[in-house]
Amino acid sequence: MKYFTKFDSKAVADLLIEKALFYKTNSRVDLNKGSGKRIGCIFLNPSLRTRASTQIAALNLGMEPIVMNMDKEGWALEMKEGAVMNKGTVEHIKDAAAVLGSYFDILAIRAFPSLTNKQEDIEDFIFNQFVKYSGVPVISLESAIRHPLQSLADMITIQEQWKGTKKPKVVLTWAPHIKAIPHAVANSFTEWALGCGHELTITHPQDYHLDPQFTKGAKIELDQHKALEDADFVYVKNWSGFNDYGKIVTTDSAWMLTEKHLKHAKNAKVMHCLPVRRNLELSDEILDGKRSIIQQQAENRIYAAQAVISQILG
Amino acid sequence: MKYFTKFDSKAVADLLIEKALFYKTNSRVDLNKGSGKRIGCIFLNPSLRTRASTQIAALNLGMEPIVMNMDKEGWALEMKEGAVMNKGTVEHIKDAAAVLGSYFDILAIRAFPSLTNKQEDIEDFIFNQFVKYSGVPVISLESAIRHPLQSLADMITIQEQWKGTKKPKVVLTWAPHIKAIPHAVANSFTEWALGCGHELTITHPQDYHLDPQFTKGAKIELDQHKALEDADFVYVKNWSGFNDYGKIVTTDSAWMLTEKHLKHAKNAKVMHCLPVRRNLELSDEILDGKRSIIQQQAENRIYAAQAVISQILG
Amino acid sequence: MKYFTKFDSKAVADLLIEKALFYKTNSRVDLNKGSGKRIGCIFLNPSLRTRASTQIAALNLGMEPIVMNMDKEGWALEMKEGAVMNKGTVEHIKDAAAVLGSYFDILAIRAFPSLTNKQEDIEDFIFNQFVKYSGVPVISLESAIRHPLQSLADMITIQEQWKGTKKPKVVLTWAPHIKAIPHAVANSFTEWALGCGHELTITHPQDYHLDPQFTKGAKIELDQHKALEDADFVYVKNWSGFNDYGKIVTTDSAWMLTEKHLKHAKNAKVMHCLPVRRNLELSDEILDGKRSIIQQQAENRIYAAQAVISQILG
Repeated sequence: MKYFTKFDSKAVADLLIEKALFYKTNSRVDLNKGSGKRIGCIFLNPSLRTRASTQIAALNLGMEPIVMNMDKEGWALEMKEGAVMNKGTVEHIKDAAAVLGSYFDILAIRAFPSLTNKQEDIEDFIFNQFVKYSGVPVISLESAIRHPLQSLADMITIQEQWKGTKKPKVVLTWAPHIKAIPHAVANSFTEWALGCGHELTITHPQDYHLDPQFTKGAKIELDQHKALEDADFVYVKNWSGFNDYGKIVTTDSAWMLTEKHLKHAKNAKVMHCLPVRRNLELSDEILDGKRSIIQQQAENRIYAAQAVISQILG
Repeated sequence: MKYFTKFDSKAVADLLIEKALFYKTNSRVDLNKGSGKRIGCIFLNPSLRTRASTQIAALNLGMEPIVMNMDKEGWALEMKEGAVMNKGTVEHIKDAAAVLGSYFDILAIRAFPSLTNKQEDIEDFIFNQFVKYSGVPVISLESAIRHPLQSLADMITIQEQWKGTKKPKVVLTWAPHIKAIPHAVANSFTEWALGCGHELTITHPQDYHLDPQFTKGAKIELDQHKALEDADFVYVKNWSGFNDYGKIVTTDSAWMLTEKHLKHAKNAKVMHCLPVRRNLELSDEILDGKRSIIQQQAENRIYAAQAVISQILG
Repeated sequence: MKYFTKFDSKAVADLLIEKALFYKTNSRVDLNKGSGKRIGCIFLNPSLRTRASTQIAALNLGMEPIVMNMDKEGWALEMKEGAVMNKGTVEHIKDAAAVLGSYFDILAIRAFPSLTNKQEDIEDFIFNQFVKYSGVPVISLESAIRHPLQSLADMITIQEQWKGTKKPKVVLTWAPHIKAIPHAVANSFTEWALGCGHELTITHPQDYHLDPQFTKGAKIELDQHKALEDADFVYVKNWSGFNDYGKIVTTDSAWMLTEKHLKHAKNAKVMHCLPVRRNLELSDEILDGKRSIIQQQAENRIYAAQAVISQILG
């Protein structure tokens, strides 16, 4: 494996899930695997869990992680081919990525979308420029359209939790938010849930359809209450408009997930990628109650990253 | 020991002082003690000495320190229970602290006071929310009302310096400043000096009384010159008003400590926690002269932290 | 060697170049050399390559690097002796440098010039205050007037590339830029190229003369085309005015290096310290073509730093 940027296949996902669960109880067993190797973690945007869990995963494998906050400690990067750089950008991605590629054995990169330039975001332009020019293995720490480490942690968590024999019913439900939020987590969760063979229903208000390249194969049910019936896992997430790109179409608080919404889903576990806005996306009663497996998801971020890095190390 | 947030007892203080002095000459002797363990150092405010000394202490014990500048690399935390998070805060302390608790063996946290909400500051609300929700051992890197690692380093320094047989006379003197400064260092120094059995005199202008819960047992002498007579150790520190909370009542330069102030304290050593504003709090002649043991205090910050982390590791 | 702040002698330069080239193929051979030792990397300004390469070099020698972004995580330093600190500066360089000296075995410092106070910049005042007060070995990560780690990497790269028997013809050519850029890289390159015995020609527009203390011994040729004839290595770099200090005298795009400029320098290799502004300083055709050895220079930054740190460790 050279790149970890999206869902590959069920076989690879199963391997990574198994590896992650092994590391969860044997975190230091491969301490020599990455010895003398370096991972560069490059953040173009803020981060808490991703920053910490990726460093921990690397340290668990004996690697040396170095974190660079490009936006704060470095400088503005130029992304366009052929640009005449006589404005605000200080260094071209071509040059920066190539240097970083010569400094590190693996690069891990976070690059959020603009939410204003739809075409560029859909092409995952910034992230792919890093991949193109770095020349070394690259791990996505969330790109414009995907957050695969989060989704892998989500799949690990579902596997840990699900003791049934039938396929679990997984529901991805839109939640209100006051800011325009990227589609990356929703897209990736959809991609991984479907790829891993889960039965997935997506529910959201009218005009919040996700990019169809991700949702193909999922059931779309715009009636939230109907969608939630008999759910085994409910993934709560806001995203901004895709058709009306990057727009907040509604903040209708009726969509905030509460216990009342789950009265016909007695055993449903509730998931969220964090950070969560309490009592806006999800009620305190759910977050602080027994349904929540959100902390478990967050902890699994370490082992998801560790499995991926280990697989890249080979 | 699970928490290091304030003075506990003379017995614990003596143990930590002894341990720190041992590490000062044997810094790497316990390099295996923290092997495979991680400390997360979370800064909600700027830091130089604390940031560096805590990392060094952890490395000396073989731990992996990870520093997170929450204000810059992360995001604004919500502190209030039950808040509807539809404003500027992005993540609730409950969720963030619990995740960090699952990522680290020990958390170390810096959280300055607001100096505007007296009740919340006195309750050390933000710091205590971290403690409450993290579930792991917590070390204070300075909270709203205490700075115990500084005070432990101060006690170590006094012990190193004091060769007398009688109890040393320790004086805490207020100094002028142009900014509203927290009470944490003054409170903690008072708490530790009294707890360690030193004879403590506090001197400050009218209307600069500290919180009586800390000063109980100390002699308050508003005449600075009288207070300084025959002092063995003079701790210089500014703080803002406590009664008139967070206010600068005076910047009277007569209170700036100079050699002249110490003419009746021939052997007095001068202490300060740093950073110090030269020629505002303290004169150059003192800072650059033989009385100053300020650099020694700063160096002892490493061994104070190392003793505390070692004690928590058990 | 205690300080690495400028060119010392050809003998020292040759030793460092040889050591660096050895480490380039044996990066971990001295992993025990710095064991238990710490390097503090202090940035008063942004950095990408220098930040990463210095950390990597230290890790390759088994040292523990700790990075401090003083401007962002710390606070404003006072530099003037005797200052009454009742304004914006929070800590005097005297006190901060002395503390850092007691915390680290080696300090590495980046301190850019003001470009407004010529006298202070020429004296390398800020950098030298750190050196003066820290009491430990200091490595320059670029000061107001020199960038010796860059120049050492440049010399390593020339040595790797040059297979001729005669001395190579090295040309330093000014390039256009929209910002006022420091003289450090140009000064240092001149100092090292001359010191290492290369035949150096400097070319720039009228009114862009560098400080003569650096250029003494170099050929100054204001006709860029004539200067570039038969060049073996062309170092491209912008700098602001020295006589008219810190000013942008011209941005004449005719000075941007393109293939056309090199038609009489068939084998010339092109160098730049990065970050480079594409199509302003240098054309894409050169940067993406075979002449460019810029990535090699950047990679050599690691081994330059490793050689220097190793030499200081002794």
